[in-house]
Amino acid sequence: MAGVNEICTRAAEAAPVLAALPTQVKDAALSNMATALEERASFLIEANAEDLDRARSDGISSTIVDRLRLTDGRIGGMSEGLRAVAAQPDPIGEVLEGWKRPNGLLIERVRVPLGVVAVIYEARPNVTADVAGLCLKSGNACVLRGSSIAASSNNAIAHVLRAGSSRAGAPEDAIQLVGGTDRYSAVELMQAKGYVDLLVPRGGAALIRSVEENATVPFIIDGDGNCHVYVDRSADENMAIDIVVNAKTQRPSVCNAAETLLVHAEIAEKWLPAALDALAEKGVEVRGDKVVQQLWPDAIPARDGDWGTEYLDLVLAVRVVESLDDAIDHVNRWGTSNAEAIVTQDISAARRFAAEVDSGSIFVNASTRFSDGGEFGYGAEIGISTQKLHARGPMGPRELTTTKYVVWGEGQIRH
Amino acid sequence: MAGVNEICTRAAEAAPVLAALPTQVKDAALSNMATALEERASFLIEANAEDLDRARSDGISSTIVDRLRLTDGRIGGMSEGLRAVAAQPDPIGEVLEGWKRPNGLLIERVRVPLGVVAVIYEARPNVTADVAGLCLKSGNACVLRGSSIAASSNNAIAHVLRAGSSRAGAPEDAIQLVGGTDRYSAVELMQAKGYVDLLVPRGGAALIRSVEENATVPFIIDGDGNCHVYVDRSADENMAIDIVVNAKTQRPSVCNAAETLLVHAEIAEKWLPAALDALAEKGVEVRGDKVVQQLWPDAIPARDGDWGTEYLDLVLAVRVVESLDDAIDHVNRWGTSNAEAIVTQDISAARRFAAEVDSGSIFVNASTRFSDGGEFGYGAEIGISTQKLHARGPMGPRELTTTKYVVWGEGQIRH
Repeated sequence: MAGVNEICTRAAEAAPVLAALPTQVKDAALSNMATALEERASFLIEANAEDLDRARSDGISSTIVDRLRLTDGRIGGMSEGLRAVAAQPDPIGEVLEGWKRPNGLLIERVRVPLGVVAVIYEARPNVTADVAGLCLKSGNACVLRGSSIAASSNNAIAHVLRAGSSRAGAPEDAIQLVGGTDRYSAVELMQAKGYVDLLVPRGGAALIRSVEENATVPFIIDGDGNCHVYVDRSADENMAIDIVVNAKTQRPSVCNAAETLLVHAEIAEKWLPAALDALAEKGVEVRGDKVVQQLWPDAIPARDGDWGTEYLDLVLAVRVVESLDDAIDHVNRWGTSNAEAIVTQDISAARRFAAEVDSGSIFVNASTRFSDGGEFGYGAEIGISTQKLHARGPMGPRELTTTKYVVWGEGQIRH
Repeated sequence: MAGVNEICTRAAEAAPVLAALPTQVKDAALSNMATALEERASFLIEANAEDLDRARSDGISSTIVDRLRLTDGRIGGMSEGLRAVAAQPDPIGEVLEGWKRPNGLLIERVRVPLGVVAVIYEARPNVTADVAGLCLKSGNACVLRGSSIAASSNNAIAHVLRAGSSRAGAPEDAIQLVGGTDRYSAVELMQAKGYVDLLVPRGGAALIRSVEENATVPFIIDGDGNCHVYVDRSADENMAIDIVVNAKTQRPSVCNAAETLLVHAEIAEKWLPAALDALAEKGVEVRGDKVVQQLWPDAIPARDGDWGTEYLDLVLAVRVVESLDDAIDHVNRWGTSNAEAIVTQDISAARRFAAEVDSGSIFVNASTRFSDGGEFGYGAEIGISTQKLHARGPMGPRELTTTKYVVWGEGQIRH
């Protein structure tokens, strides 16, 4: 089994070949990868069964076993994702802008691949296909390091993807899976300076902390999601209930699920009891401030810690605010820059919330659950950046690129 | 004197005010800053004299004393830079793109400020004005940390700039100068996590190393410049001499000066002796490979170490290469991703060099000395990024921004 160093070296050697690959070859490779996954579905499901058996005998929680499971439907989903990525425009070679200087120099800014993109991720095996597809589309070699729990599934998927892409003429070394799944292999990857141009850790707080402590390669944090829904005094009441119920309950375990509901005092008395009834019906535990407790006695008293907690569960912190300003201040104090929603019919409230809340994505009259690369139309996503440098919000193929200036002269020298 | 913590807190508090500042206020502030520098020139020159006296009595080298010196001309240069920055379009609020999803969601990507930008820099006091101007234009608060050698000058410049900008209605705390100039204050700034959104170190290898070791805030490396000029077999011979002489000698101490000359073997015999004569006339010491030594006996034998050295002096490494491929390989092996030039009349050679050389800026038939924010038309520059994430090449006001998604819906929820 190749070590991290050898794998990174191979990826770095494949990178210039990938950077020069014509669009048609990349798209044909993506299409072959999609077909190969479907054709080899039984092979994948067999490999996945090994992981499932191991997980069950190790007493892994049923939520995680469920995330791990491959079905024909989920394999079809991976293939669909790869085809959607193929259908995107090729970001590479795009001339983003160009201008002429008074001395005649023509300056062009051109989009180019980063080189080698590494992703460390947890249970879900579909990430293997998503990342491989987005990296190939953007002309990057990828180094994938999944978790031990999904080792057999990831191996099988990577094998099928490599075979599919190389049949179209993409270099086989473009898609690399790190065999070792111990902690050491992750740290080795974080420190593969000079080989890895971008590392995206997709996992919980422990992984993020480890990257922040150990990484010497450039990285983008795919971080927490303490997401907010603010219901303004002018909100459409039914729409507001639909959005908050969706944002909280449609999939509570993911980072773009809502964790706090803020309600304008003027609408609270009328709207909040009905909204909290609707949430309670879906099994949501409400932790409210004093006003909330008065309006809806089933609420558990909220503590200060609740405003900063990402429950990832059917729990919602609820607060009544006196004004739009208070709502903005609350989000800017407690939010994690992932996704926040406002429900309002008031255009100036919407514009102020959008302008003044410091977050990666602001949703006006829509659920925070749309903060997602697939929902944004990127076919798949590499993660959701909660930082400000390089990429912010859902990351698609374009976020895996950098630019280069190409300056055309006729002998200009500097005086 | 306020400590780093207090200064960063003030900057962070000013940041949202700056982010919301109308374009006219920002441009009026920049214009006031330019005028104020000119009006207070004698005050600045007096403060500068203190630094100059101290530097001379400390036995600082004359090169550095020269960089430190403020003259009416240099003060005028700072003012001109500020006016050029004012004349740029306001990057903030720009809608970079927008699209509609099948479910009706309208997704917009909007340019917003980073928040607080910190710059650690060395002798030249003009950086104080350049950085303050670019940060204000891009709606960011700035924290400036200059070197002890220029402490009085920087203090005076910052004082004048703050007075000028606040007269136009910009928050005074937008421009912060760290009073302490010991090593500790720099490290404190590198670790002001949660306050500093971007740190740009502008200095030598020791500063870069310290940032890489100590920084917990996001940073962009303004790194080395081991820049190359490649003279292709099809080069216009006079143009090639002009460009290499300019790139090496016009200002040898800066990062975009050329350090290595590569010459195609087919043109070497005819072109190289005349070119090296012209360089020698300007006082350049040539370190050549075997072929160069044969063609031009005054050349000192080059060692392997020469290809990786940024001389920042009148020294040039010279190598004859067999092909365009060899030239590209050499640059990709030894370059530092700052700026590289090709001199050629062959369009396919130019396009291949531009595509395959992995560097921030590629110049076709122009001097590497144009790798500079001012020369690119940004009015001033915050530095030259030699990394791939977030910014690459000369950085102007736009590189001090991030984006935010604003998504407009009509009650959409996710199914």
